[in-house]
Amino acid sequence: MPKISKRANQVIASPIRKFLPKVLATEERGLEVIKLNVGDPDLTPPSSFWRTIKNFRAKNLHYAPSSGIREHVLAWQKYYRTFGIHLQPENIIPTVGGAEAILLAFLTVADPGEEILVFEPLYSSYKGFATMAGVKLVPVTLKIEQSFVLPDRKEIRKKINRKTKAIVVINPNNPTGTILSKKEIKTVISLANQYNLFIIADETYREIIFSGLPTSFLKFPQVKNKVIVVDSVSKRFSLPGARLGCLASYNQEVMKAVLKLAMVRLSAPALEQYGLIPLLKHPSAYTRELTAEYKRRKETVINALKKIPGIVFHEPQGAFYLLIKLPIKDVDDFVNFMLTKFNDKGRTVLMTPAEDFYITPHLGRQELRIAYVLNCQKLKLGIGILKKGLADYLKSEAK
Amino acid sequence: MPKISKRANQVIASPIRKFLPKVLATEERGLEVIKLNVGDPDLTPPSSFWRTIKNFRAKNLHYAPSSGIREHVLAWQKYYRTFGIHLQPENIIPTVGGAEAILLAFLTVADPGEEILVFEPLYSSYKGFATMAGVKLVPVTLKIEQSFVLPDRKEIRKKINRKTKAIVVINPNNPTGTILSKKEIKTVISLANQYNLFIIADETYREIIFSGLPTSFLKFPQVKNKVIVVDSVSKRFSLPGARLGCLASYNQEVMKAVLKLAMVRLSAPALEQYGLIPLLKHPSAYTRELTAEYKRRKETVINALKKIPGIVFHEPQGAFYLLIKLPIKDVDDFVNFMLTKFNDKGRTVLMTPAEDFYITPHLGRQELRIAYVLNCQKLKLGIGILKKGLADYLKSEAK
Repeated sequence: MPKISKRANQVIASPIRKFLPKVLATEERGLEVIKLNVGDPDLTPPSSFWRTIKNFRAKNLHYAPSSGIREHVLAWQKYYRTFGIHLQPENIIPTVGGAEAILLAFLTVADPGEEILVFEPLYSSYKGFATMAGVKLVPVTLKIEQSFVLPDRKEIRKKINRKTKAIVVINPNNPTGTILSKKEIKTVISLANQYNLFIIADETYREIIFSGLPTSFLKFPQVKNKVIVVDSVSKRFSLPGARLGCLASYNQEVMKAVLKLAMVRLSAPALEQYGLIPLLKHPSAYTRELTAEYKRRKETVINALKKIPGIVFHEPQGAFYLLIKLPIKDVDDFVNFMLTKFNDKGRTVLMTPAEDFYITPHLGRQELRIAYVLNCQKLKLGIGILKKGLADYLKSEAK
Repeated sequence: MPKISKRANQVIASPIRKFLPKVLATEERGLEVIKLNVGDPDLTPPSSFWRTIKNFRAKNLHYAPSSGIREHVLAWQKYYRTFGIHLQPENIIPTVGGAEAILLAFLTVADPGEEILVFEPLYSSYKGFATMAGVKLVPVTLKIEQSFVLPDRKEIRKKINRKTKAIVVINPNNPTGTILSKKEIKTVISLANQYNLFIIADETYREIIFSGLPTSFLKFPQVKNKVIVVDSVSKRFSLPGARLGCLASYNQEVMKAVLKLAMVRLSAPALEQYGLIPLLKHPSAYTRELTAEYKRRKETVINALKKIPGIVFHEPQGAFYLLIKLPIKDVDDFVNFMLTKFNDKGRTVLMTPAEDFYITPHLGRQELRIAYVLNCQKLKLGIGILKKGLADYLKSEAK
């Protein structure tokens, strides 16, 4: 039997998705599992999405152009204009979710063996795409005790060398929920300019911020030709199953390359491109309410977490995640305990161990990611169960 | 400004899609362009697809599992059973079109710098995916004058070395329309076994064959653990815009690796997975009529081509493409001529230059690919225009 590739062996199973079989087993035992692991929102998307799809009259579903269905691209253009960003249609290419935009960005900025600077913890799919693209992610470690603040310029600089091609920033951040401060943005921009690096800015959660106004790295003229934005409709319109996002850049050479790569895979889903046109054209009515709801949820989670002794967490400023550090050696074991050995009145709770959000080995073993994608009542219940489960686990460990 | 990667520079623009701007310019001049370039069928898909989508009642569109929506995977299982292929659900992973299945297969079987044996001409996206994956495609050249028959075992063997990890077979073939004979299949299987290679079998056009019964490399027990099938609904159900296909293999190690890679990109489009369930469960009523229609079209095209002096072509046995060799040095120039300098009563015709279907430089410059994805009347008209355009071009060249 021929052997599979080294890279296929290296890719890790998604830390977010790998517990699925155990969850099913737990549910088969009649227990309810409150799922705070996946960033898969419970909120219903804008109804105009469904209306557009149900009113779709053509009988054929042709390939979309690789550059996107024209009206869909124009809708993205209009969407960006609401933030004062003036892109031309050729600066935007629709992708199969934000995920594909990450892969296309990696392939465009770096060759196999080259390096991309990232801040850890970071969304785990970046690691998988780096393995696929043969690119090395070089991490700058951020610490929960320091609210995940970026270190000084000179600390970050140490990780940059001749092989470094780009810096990744996820803003607002998954999994930490942080937003870059003006000072941190200045640091990133100054490093990109000094070392001639691309900035891959993942702005999937742009509007989901709990104070201030949404923004974008596309708004900084100092790095106009260095910024590649990775974007997605999954979170801001609660449509993860639509598999649509885009890659946007003022850099024409980048866009030409991305278009060639996009041609190889032919096109992003056609029907959803149509369905999203009204949403992209008039985003703010929905995203304003969405953000208000996530803000309420964030406060519910924070208030509930404050009642758990011995844990460390950082209050998120955006997105819908946060990390918690537990007084436990190996959180993976705790997550398994919660699924297999614990229940509180027939219920348990699932969260994501944070280890796989780190690149440096052994980091994050004490940390969990919570995605607050359920209503406030469920969240309060879930965190209450976490509290009880943690107490039980610590007791059983002490024995 | 930072430079883009070498691989992004290397990727070629799709030979099928790169003429789009010129086509638009031609159409703006008021001319009709009969498009025989893209394999984008004019036939309407089964109505049950639209019915399922329009009746979709859930208000949310969640991420599908990375392994596919259960009922959709079971529908693929049932689909394969109609060909006597007995796969388990874990042997099938839905992908974003057949395209993504190609990329996942490449990443799974080969590391950067390793080699995959292919037969040229071949569907041009394979070249793009190889560049993305950093894999080298090593071509065995087939010739139109020899009806694209595979050379002897010992000729093919010369291209295999320690770096070779897999053989790609597209069957029925895009762009040649050939089907592998029993002898050719035997050769491929024997080479895979002798040199311990994976067989990546692209069976997108499985049912579209003009005599005999559809089959699959999954039916050969001698290579049970070596075969990775790349599949797609785009052609057999006339749904290229749905972006759904699958990767199927009995090899459990392969499927585990593909699932991990699939987790990185989260999921294939959810709505279309539902829409395709009735089609996959009952495929043959539709595909039988579809194949009969393509057979009629094939005959129309062949009869029309017979009236063009000086060209060489091979009668296709399946899929909906064929290659024509013209008495012209550079077919690219001819395609441009047809778009910019020629029309017949306000009409012209677009076909794909075949050079980019070859890997060996300079091959295929005299060849064109025709996709017969229009009705018989349009095809007759189109080939008639080709005849006149060719005569005009040769006359203008002779001057």
